[in-house]
Amino acid sequence: MGESGAAGDPWSFGLEFLVRDYELDIQGIVNNANYQHYFEHARHEFLKARGLDFAAMHAAGVDPVVYRIEVDYKSPLRSGDRFLVRLRVGREGRLKLVFHQEAVKLPSGVLAAAAKVAVAMTRGGRPVPPSDEVVAALLAP
Amino acid sequence: MGESGAAGDPWSFGLEFLVRDYELDIQGIVNNANYQHYFEHARHEFLKARGLDFAAMHAAGVDPVVYRIEVDYKSPLRSGDRFLVRLRVGREGRLKLVFHQEAVKLPSGVLAAAAKVAVAMTRGGRPVPPSDEVVAALLAP
Amino acid sequence: MGESGAAGDPWSFGLEFLVRDYELDIQGIVNNANYQHYFEHARHEFLKARGLDFAAMHAAGVDPVVYRIEVDYKSPLRSGDRFLVRLRVGREGRLKLVFHQEAVKLPSGVLAAAAKVAVAMTRGGRPVPPSDEVVAALLAP
Amino acid sequence: MGESGAAGDPWSFGLEFLVRDYELDIQGIVNNANYQHYFEHARHEFLKARGLDFAAMHAAGVDPVVYRIEVDYKSPLRSGDRFLVRLRVGREGRLKLVFHQEAVKLPSGVLAAAAKVAVAMTRGGRPVPPSDEVVAALLAP
Repeated sequence: MGESGAAGDPWSFGLEFLVRDYELDIQGIVNNANYQHYFEHARHEFLKARGLDFAAMHAAGVDPVVYRIEVDYKSPLRSGDRFLVRLRVGREGRLKLVFHQEAVKLPSGVLAAAAKVAVAMTRGGRPVPPSDEVVAALLAP
Repeated sequence: MGESGAAGDPWSFGLEFLVRDYELDIQGIVNNANYQHYFEHARHEFLKARGLDFAAMHAAGVDPVVYRIEVDYKSPLRSGDRFLVRLRVGREGRLKLVFHQEAVKLPSGVLAAAAKVAVAMTRGGRPVPPSDEVVAALLAP
Repeated sequence: MGESGAAGDPWSFGLEFLVRDYELDIQGIVNNANYQHYFEHARHEFLKARGLDFAAMHAAGVDPVVYRIEVDYKSPLRSGDRFLVRLRVGREGRLKLVFHQEAVKLPSGVLAAAAKVAVAMTRGGRPVPPSDEVVAALLAP
Repeated sequence: MGESGAAGDPWSFGLEFLVRDYELDIQGIVNNANYQHYFEHARHEFLKARGLDFAAMHAAGVDPVVYRIEVDYKSPLRSGDRFLVRLRVGREGRLKLVFHQEAVKLPSGVLAAAAKVAVAMTRGGRPVPPSDEVVAALLAP
């Protein structure tokens, strides 16, 4: 857990999780929707680690909003599985921040799921460019 | 609710929902992960309407597994919103079924979210082609 | 669905539900926590039916807060089950509203779960007596 | 985290959690139903720490079933809150195991919620007495 720092490591942040049994469905695997929860929680913890805060931004009238998500499910998570959610952020255009995220099983490193999550900052429901402070905080290696 | 039948209607099935307040997050909008729940529930009800049953297939050793999902979030759902989830199914290649799904607000018809969900049938964790019975049931107009 | 009106009917409100497969756990039964979701949704719809609105009250600075819940799980809900959540409200003391709720399977009437939910109105985190308007709306038969 | 061992400590197990923002509702506090998730996850981890396994028991035909829960909500959990869920187990009668559980905020120790959860072992839907092995594992200090 915490930020990764190895030379050449393309990931900016990682957070460990343990599957909770209530996240399993009748097939005995984690229900697909829960991966969005994992990815969201990792993004919010990353924001905090970079000095930003989701709830504080909301209180200040700026809401990061996910407007597109792509998830590839590779190998299902099961009861007892530990996994790491790691991420890095890129910018596309003036308004879009893109989070690249992976959930990998521990200790095997097997890829459970990969996601690409496009986020825009909004104020009053309208997209606004992320502030320089936000961009600097998120895109720093 | 029920299956649509208008001439030229590209949708094979529709199901009405009402936002439940526990689905809202601190921003007062439906949390993104819940759209996957809505889409999944609509797919399972569609299967039932076509004479298939998710739990029965699982008991028979065949599990439909989502292996990729793309969701575009267009206009957030809020407390009290009614919406329709509609879908149609296509086949890509030998193994892949693709569900095209939309959540549209009622009565306005405003698009809340659109999804493309790729599903494979699996037996013992391995993808198997969907049976002729399944294909016929799902791809009928 | 809608409010019940039969003479001698002790229930003030009822709302129909259908089990959604994502609510099932690895045992193939609805996970216990989801009953709280069902009960909460029924309470909020009851409020709306009585002219009150949970989100509007929140915006006005008054938040109904559940401070105690008791649930007896009697017969598990499974995939495909339809059920009715019904409720009535009582007042205990100056601050407390108590919702008596049941989830009963349809059409059998088998009791799936029964709950007693104690609610207080709060303003700024402090309990305040429910307004006369709220009391009149909720306790009317 | 891990099992507690201080002399006179009435708790048999504790597990640390961090609030995840998707668990918050429109009021900005953790939705009540999520406490059941927290309590359940702590019980399952306790079982594992004692050499038992929820999913393995299910596979062996024995399902622990919660048949009554009481939760007192004392002080709401909010974004960023860390908390400990601790528990101890008692036996009542031949069939009933009772988990006493608390969620306390860290580092303050403020009680967020307390629960009493009654569990029975079932086989084929019928309650059966917990095996001596299970009783010994759970009731050991």
